[in-house]
Formats: sequence, C-alpha cells, structure tokens
Amino acid sequence: MKINKLVFAVVALGLAAGASAQMKPEDQIKYRKAGYSFMSWNMGKIKAQTIDNPGSFNKDQVAGAANAIAAIANSGMGALYGPGTDKDVGNQKTRVKPEFFQQQDEVRKLAVAFVKEANELQKVAATGDAAAIKAQFGKTGESCKACHDKFRKDE
Amino acid sequence: MKINKLVFAVVALGLAAGASAQMKPEDQIKYRKAGYSFMSWNMGKIKAQTIDNPGSFNKDQVAGAANAIAAIANSGMGALYGPGTDKDVGNQKTRVKPEFFQQQDEVRKLAVAFVKEANELQKVAATGDAAAIKAQFGKTGESCKACHDKFRKDE
Repeated sequence: MKINKLVFAVVALGLAAGASAQMKPEDQIKYRKAGYSFMSWNMGKIKAQTIDNPGSFNKDQVAGAANAIAAIANSGMGALYGPGTDKDVGNQKTRVKPEFFQQQDEVRKLAVAFVKEANELQKVAATGDAAAIKAQFGKTGESCKACHDKFRKDE
Repeated sequence: MKINKLVFAVVALGLAAGASAQMKPEDQIKYRKAGYSFMSWNMGKIKAQTIDNPGSFNKDQVAGAANAIAAIANSGMGALYGPGTDKDVGNQKTRVKPEFFQQQDEVRKLAVAFVKEANELQKVAATGDAAAIKAQFGKTGESCKACHDKFRKDE
C-alpha cells in the first residue's frame, strides 16, 4: 500500500501538465495553497499536543490530524503545478521559486520523501504513542522544510 | 471505526470554543476555507472521472481524492468555528450565515450526515467500482449542498 502511494505520488507529479490541462492556473494555485494550508493546521495541532502542551494530548484528534496530512500528501498535488502556475495569477499569489519547475528530479525526490514521512506519521499516530508521534512529527516537519528551504520564497 | 469517526465529529463540533481558544479568528476562517476548498478540488476530480468524462476514470486518483475528502471531513473542523469567526475578519472573508451559530443542533445533524457520506465514499472508492462511486459521489454532494443551502451565503 505504501509502495503504491509512493508510485502514485511520483506519477502524479509526472502527469502535472496533463492532469491540470482543463484547470485555470489561478485555480491550481488556489487549490495547492489550500492543501498546504490545511496540512499546516493539522501539523500545528500535532505540535501543540505533543510538544507545546503534551497534557492536552488527544489520541483521536492527533490521529485525525495525521490522517488528513497523509491523505492530502497522497492526493496528487503535483497536478496543481501546471503551466502558468510559476508566478502570481489574478488574485492568487504564489511563493514557489522558478527553480521548482527547472529541477523536477529534485522536486520528485523531496515529494517522495515527504509522502513517506507523512504515511509513517499516519501509521504511528494510529498507535496513540505520544513519544513516537512526537519523533515522527519531527521527521515529517523536516521533510516539509527541505522543500520550503529549496523551493519556497521567503515572505 | 465509522462509529468512532462520527462520535469524534460530534465531539469536535461541541468543543469548538475550547479547541480554538488560542487561534485567531482570522486563522480559523483561513483554515476552514482551505479545508473546504481542498475537498472541492477532490470532489471535482471524482466528478470529472465518473460523470463528465468517464473514459478518464483512474481508480487510484479517485481513491486518493476520496481519502482526502474523508480525512478532512474527520479532522475536527468544528474547532474552526470559534467566537469571532461569524463575520469577515482582517483579510479573511467568510460566507457563513449567522444562523450557523444559532442552530447548533441542525449544524451537528448536517455535519454528521456529511461525515457519514464522505466515509462511505472513501469505502466505495477503494473498490474501484466506477458506477457505485458515481452514485455515492451524488449522495456526498447532496450532503455538502444541504449545509450550503442552509448556512452559506450566495456569492
């Protein structure tokens, strides 16, 4: 199952142009930002409940957050980086760097690494082991940051 | 498992004020809009592949889309309707009607119905049966619309 998900993530990235052919660049940017934003909310909940305020740890909430992150990570967001989405369009601003579109092998490597960590976070979160979740949360966050550092402009 | 998810959705709605105590109303609106927006993208993919252009049906893409919708539906978005989120705040516009905050029993009923349909869509999508997915997509869409009709302002 995990292998399938990884393969799908790679395929989705590769098919970016085709899968997004009928969607306006502005909408692609809107939807990809929505996905990252919603993952960010869920990462924040896991951080709050395992690092900032461990006393508030709620197994179901953390598992639900990890499920959302993993499902979004596996939903083929590569399709939202089609032609014309490399710069602000209409009302949609994007912080993606031009290098993202020029270094597809590196992007794919980082995307696969992120999906792997997000899948593992989902698996660990289902156990309810707060210490293990905290550790895997750290690894997942690092895989987010690896892409941000390389391909996202500072605000 | 499904029962647990429903209970969690109800509990999450009930805890709205508490769970969002430390998050700015503007951020709550931003994150809930992101969740709905990302679900909308995924609903659109399922519609495209089962209704508009059935020849493009891709089992893995549809299952991934249904997973994302179900996981977001079960992530406790009720926590994003805390005090001060009933109107536009800062840069965030919201189309929620005031009635949403006055009719919590009705909101809960619609939310539980939506989570139930989204979970079923996830289950049916995993089978890869395009006709069954199309039927369950319709039911899920109706459960979205039931809430939009009652509690969302027209654009």
